[in-house]
Amino acid sequence: MIISAKKIPKYEPSMEFVERKGKGHPDTICDGISENLSVALSKYYREKTGKILHHNVDKAILVGGQARAWFGGGEVIEPIYLLLVGRAVGRIDKDEIVPIGKLAVTAAKSYIKENLKHLDPESHIIVDYRIKQGSVDLVKNFEAGNDIPLANDTSFGVGFYPMTETETLTLKVENFLNSKEGKELFPQVGEDIKVMALRHENEIKLTIAAAMVSGLIKNKEDYLEIKRQLTIKLLELSSEITKMKVDITINGADKPEKDIFYLTVTGTSAENGDDGQVGRGNRANGLITPFRPMSLEAVAGKNPVSHTGKLYSILAMDIAKKLVEENKHISSANVYMLSQIGVPITEPQSIYVEATADISDEAVRSYVESIVKEGLQEAPKLWERILEGRVSLY
Amino acid sequence: MIISAKKIPKYEPSMEFVERKGKGHPDTICDGISENLSVALSKYYREKTGKILHHNVDKAILVGGQARAWFGGGEVIEPIYLLLVGRAVGRIDKDEIVPIGKLAVTAAKSYIKENLKHLDPESHIIVDYRIKQGSVDLVKNFEAGNDIPLANDTSFGVGFYPMTETETLTLKVENFLNSKEGKELFPQVGEDIKVMALRHENEIKLTIAAAMVSGLIKNKEDYLEIKRQLTIKLLELSSEITKMKVDITINGADKPEKDIFYLTVTGTSAENGDDGQVGRGNRANGLITPFRPMSLEAVAGKNPVSHTGKLYSILAMDIAKKLVEENKHISSANVYMLSQIGVPITEPQSIYVEATADISDEAVRSYVESIVKEGLQEAPKLWERILEGRVSLY
Amino acid sequence: MIISAKKIPKYEPSMEFVERKGKGHPDTICDGISENLSVALSKYYREKTGKILHHNVDKAILVGGQARAWFGGGEVIEPIYLLLVGRAVGRIDKDEIVPIGKLAVTAAKSYIKENLKHLDPESHIIVDYRIKQGSVDLVKNFEAGNDIPLANDTSFGVGFYPMTETETLTLKVENFLNSKEGKELFPQVGEDIKVMALRHENEIKLTIAAAMVSGLIKNKEDYLEIKRQLTIKLLELSSEITKMKVDITINGADKPEKDIFYLTVTGTSAENGDDGQVGRGNRANGLITPFRPMSLEAVAGKNPVSHTGKLYSILAMDIAKKLVEENKHISSANVYMLSQIGVPITEPQSIYVEATADISDEAVRSYVESIVKEGLQEAPKLWERILEGRVSLY
Amino acid sequence: MIISAKKIPKYEPSMEFVERKGKGHPDTICDGISENLSVALSKYYREKTGKILHHNVDKAILVGGQARAWFGGGEVIEPIYLLLVGRAVGRIDKDEIVPIGKLAVTAAKSYIKENLKHLDPESHIIVDYRIKQGSVDLVKNFEAGNDIPLANDTSFGVGFYPMTETETLTLKVENFLNSKEGKELFPQVGEDIKVMALRHENEIKLTIAAAMVSGLIKNKEDYLEIKRQLTIKLLELSSEITKMKVDITINGADKPEKDIFYLTVTGTSAENGDDGQVGRGNRANGLITPFRPMSLEAVAGKNPVSHTGKLYSILAMDIAKKLVEENKHISSANVYMLSQIGVPITEPQSIYVEATADISDEAVRSYVESIVKEGLQEAPKLWERILEGRVSLY
Repeated sequence: MIISAKKIPKYEPSMEFVERKGKGHPDTICDGISENLSVALSKYYREKTGKILHHNVDKAILVGGQARAWFGGGEVIEPIYLLLVGRAVGRIDKDEIVPIGKLAVTAAKSYIKENLKHLDPESHIIVDYRIKQGSVDLVKNFEAGNDIPLANDTSFGVGFYPMTETETLTLKVENFLNSKEGKELFPQVGEDIKVMALRHENEIKLTIAAAMVSGLIKNKEDYLEIKRQLTIKLLELSSEITKMKVDITINGADKPEKDIFYLTVTGTSAENGDDGQVGRGNRANGLITPFRPMSLEAVAGKNPVSHTGKLYSILAMDIAKKLVEENKHISSANVYMLSQIGVPITEPQSIYVEATADISDEAVRSYVESIVKEGLQEAPKLWERILEGRVSLY
Repeated sequence: MIISAKKIPKYEPSMEFVERKGKGHPDTICDGISENLSVALSKYYREKTGKILHHNVDKAILVGGQARAWFGGGEVIEPIYLLLVGRAVGRIDKDEIVPIGKLAVTAAKSYIKENLKHLDPESHIIVDYRIKQGSVDLVKNFEAGNDIPLANDTSFGVGFYPMTETETLTLKVENFLNSKEGKELFPQVGEDIKVMALRHENEIKLTIAAAMVSGLIKNKEDYLEIKRQLTIKLLELSSEITKMKVDITINGADKPEKDIFYLTVTGTSAENGDDGQVGRGNRANGLITPFRPMSLEAVAGKNPVSHTGKLYSILAMDIAKKLVEENKHISSANVYMLSQIGVPITEPQSIYVEATADISDEAVRSYVESIVKEGLQEAPKLWERILEGRVSLY
Repeated sequence: MIISAKKIPKYEPSMEFVERKGKGHPDTICDGISENLSVALSKYYREKTGKILHHNVDKAILVGGQARAWFGGGEVIEPIYLLLVGRAVGRIDKDEIVPIGKLAVTAAKSYIKENLKHLDPESHIIVDYRIKQGSVDLVKNFEAGNDIPLANDTSFGVGFYPMTETETLTLKVENFLNSKEGKELFPQVGEDIKVMALRHENEIKLTIAAAMVSGLIKNKEDYLEIKRQLTIKLLELSSEITKMKVDITINGADKPEKDIFYLTVTGTSAENGDDGQVGRGNRANGLITPFRPMSLEAVAGKNPVSHTGKLYSILAMDIAKKLVEENKHISSANVYMLSQIGVPITEPQSIYVEATADISDEAVRSYVESIVKEGLQEAPKLWERILEGRVSLY
Repeated sequence: MIISAKKIPKYEPSMEFVERKGKGHPDTICDGISENLSVALSKYYREKTGKILHHNVDKAILVGGQARAWFGGGEVIEPIYLLLVGRAVGRIDKDEIVPIGKLAVTAAKSYIKENLKHLDPESHIIVDYRIKQGSVDLVKNFEAGNDIPLANDTSFGVGFYPMTETETLTLKVENFLNSKEGKELFPQVGEDIKVMALRHENEIKLTIAAAMVSGLIKNKEDYLEIKRQLTIKLLELSSEITKMKVDITINGADKPEKDIFYLTVTGTSAENGDDGQVGRGNRANGLITPFRPMSLEAVAGKNPVSHTGKLYSILAMDIAKKLVEENKHISSANVYMLSQIGVPITEPQSIYVEATADISDEAVRSYVESIVKEGLQEAPKLWERILEGRVSLY
């Protein structure tokens, strides 16, 4: 295991792009449902055997439906089709068949019920699955890990801390709009909210695409009024987060003069042709940040015990945070971790940390080393937080 | 349109992680087939109407099959299942139905025939599709663009130049193994090759997972001998690319003493439970580089005329390259571009360039501006290179 | 149009086989849902255009799920998968898309809710569909019919009257068990009930396979007691229908000594591997009667305006009934009708009647002719009864 | 076991309807492929274990594609989709997985290659499957049978002998058109041929729907000339079979004046919206005969060892034939057989024979009894003929 650290200058690009796809976005729906299924499988395996058996359900595809929305109403003409894909141990012993199909369908429906108020899990979506038994070798590898599970792939995780104001703002805007409070104030805003932030120097431009719920909006005037109120509210929210000038555009493709609005029956563009996949949206910290370290690993749906593409994504975030929060000399950190298939997850091939610090290289290195080692001790227990939903994954 | 540039220090991390998924990897198969389909649709539309009509077929899922491989032979027990998803204009006029189904199936089969020598397109894979007519608004938007197409999404593209030696090495190793020469020397190596490079200071560790073709390998000794020869050949290749010490591990999860090898019937892990999706693998430049600017956009399958997620990924690479190659004072560049839905693709919301240069900030800025403007003029013609396959996309 | 009639001896075979698949049988579920969908489409078309447009949704396949049932409970491990197939007019005019997908899913779910008390339409079944626009020629043919629709196929319908006591008994036993009264008395009996009657001379042997609802049965003793009570009740019912000796076997494959019982969670064998299709079960009169005239036409799902495979099956039953009920000299009748594609449905190619009568051949012929002509006048109005559900179809 | 026989008058209806769906009809394609799969599974099981293990793959659905045909050419725009459904033992022992998927796909493709010359198995059809492991109880039942297998359902089989001239003619016309000779003479006639015969008194009207292969027909004149030649040839053929007047209509829905012809690219209507299922077409003797004893059992795809729905359909035909051919006093026979689940297949619940004979009731009964008993001895060996394809099934 190589642990390496390097001091780098403060991260101060004059421009930033930051994106977040809300919980009703087709990609995020896929993430959420796949993760739900992984959690359900994990709990089932634990209940039956005391441990979490091999599974990897980190693939899914959502085929957008077809809908007609109009002020005051609408109709889903063709339901959304969702296909869950992956592998999971299918038998616990000769007689105990794992109810994968039941868990898959239920995971999907429960995500929808909890997160997509206007999407009827019964008539607006078809949930199908093609989940196979895991490859035998991987399963063996998986079960072989006793105290410390063995990494089931050579993959990496990256994380950084802290977020910039632009990043925080992007996250908070979506979080607010999909919060209880947000929904009370603006029930007409669906859950499919895409926030794109562009900061240049000291100005932030927020471009928000928010699927509006047609049944709750009377007419064009109503719609435009809601957008006005929304803008006011979000500017207020922004001012709590940043002192920079913030400019907000909501549903910029609207053309009121041509009666073109972003109306949906169900609050998600998935109802009308927008497709989705797992791992095509937010990274584990909830954002897409092309200026920042990112991995391509889909975190959602991977098993929480041995898949380092998931575990290291979380650990890297945790370690970066710890580095900064517990040491006033470190103002920011990027953490990169690489696993090695077949080796205990507490022993990555290498960890690299870039830190902005006002102490010596040597001091950084030594501090990083101790925090990293502490952090790695958490790896075998991460599954607990994951199962309890206490960790950001998408 | 904001164009902004900034001088940054040379990119010299003491560690790098770089990954490439070869053309037989389940994710890359999805990319390749989706792109094939986009090209086929584009050509069809052009032939029939003189222009490329709206489509977006940038989603697909591959459900791994089940296979048994043994030295000297093997069998695919359950075929791979591939589902192509997206939207495309389905009628040219009242009578001319676009043969989307035919194009989809053919795109898949032709990718397989050209790229996966041992995968029988007839019996080893089921190709299905659920492709719908595009959302009416987007189609309108799309067609409205006359001379200069209008961006059909608010999305970004990023690119950098040049590659580091580690990045070049990662790319070249897979390219070689999947080249005509590579296949002549090592016909036993399948097309599913994953190369993971870890550089620390001046040492590179290459971890290669290469699906070996069981039917062409007689026995354990033969297998181990091929790995030995491969290692020698790749070390030789490496020495042409870098002077750093290179360490190579091929199929590190093999356990000869337990008769565990990475054997496949078809040369791809897709045959036995490894699933795939579009956009989960290589970025447009062919690599996954967590230390570098990356976007989450899947480039494959997007329409080549107005989808800025695709066009700007290519343009950003092109511009970065041009910046460096045409000016000896610039040694490296990162390019970030953000589009605006509904606005001509030649007018991005903003472009940001980070450059390492030995000239003044002002000189950089002015030079960047001129190259960027030149580059943007290419946007409306990019589709030609894309249709001809003359551009790296995955 | 040829109308031909013949006197035949009384139908008195010394043996009879009669079968009925209850409304929860996998084949009947397919029939019921396909017919539901045809009715829904018909109503939609009528509401939007004033007439019933072309459709033919007489194909469906049900893939049995997987379940575990035990006394007192049970679990559906893998949901049932249902695929609805057919053709239907998909657009009413340029802007009005027919919500085929919505109607398909709703037709399925509503059948389940109304007929399968213990099958959860949300988690126990996946309803998918592949319904295409009808072939253009047929659609033209269909719409061309003005006052009198033109037959859209060359197909036949057959019917007979009256039923024998064995036939009546078979029908009534299932009807009773699936009636409100039956369910009140025996809530433990699911809806998947197959009744097979064998009569030899004056003895009838009823073999009944009834999916028992595991959650409502405490234990083996309870199960056996229910079977005893059921037998008593059904013998009582039988004695009201026939004076012949009736022997009843319920779930004959049970082996109490080996703890093998016919237990289901949902009341249908579809939950555990029994597959189904449209048109593989009961004929239009509700029975399968190898000793009697039968056609292979699936009646369910066919359009009720021009598909003679459906219309003539009903008409033939109607005419046979009328022949017997309105003329005391005719004691039984078999009716065979053959349509001709493209010709008005009131003008079949030919109709043949076999009658048992105590009058002259000539009298039979002349009477048949008048009743047949009357009957044919009903053909263009049959759709009304079909849409109202006032006709036996499966 | 009850064996009962009865003398009945000669079968001489003044009218007959007889139908045959040729080997390229969507329903027959489903039959043929399902049976192919059953044979492939049977052979696989036998090779691996020495016996035929449980399977029941007697369900399939074909979703018609979309095609454009014109004189001289054509194009399949959307491929046909075929879903194979059923159950089969999936593991022979812990390590030996049965390649159900491979066998399913191969069974489909080989049927197509052998029977549908113009249908490209690679690009014109998507073959999918959802085949599960059999219900455990049935599997046990199945394997328990040692020397004599136990019936795996309570089902019946019926057969009659001899065919009438109308029946023979219907069968022979299709057989000829799909024979080597027929195809040499009329290569333009596809394999999807539906023959419908209507006999009234001494006149037979044959209505033939034959999918013509567009690529092999130059123009309207060519098409009409082929129909003329066909009619001449078939009248000639008819005259060898019957002395009755035969009238032939080929593709009666053609309207040359409106350029409406029955043209197909592939020789089957499945290419353009005609759907199919197993068991919806010909009975085991190759015909649909509403005037004759018929069962609803799909014979194709059922296991050939214990499924009495299949075995008794064949046996009933065999016994009827034997009764007539081996005894000059018997001129025709209908045979009805009913099995009992869990009882050896050589011991049906009952067999009923209707015979036309010029001997005493008693003589008939005694003769029937001996032939039936002989016939039943064949039941355990029927699978051999089935596997060799030496028996008519659809």
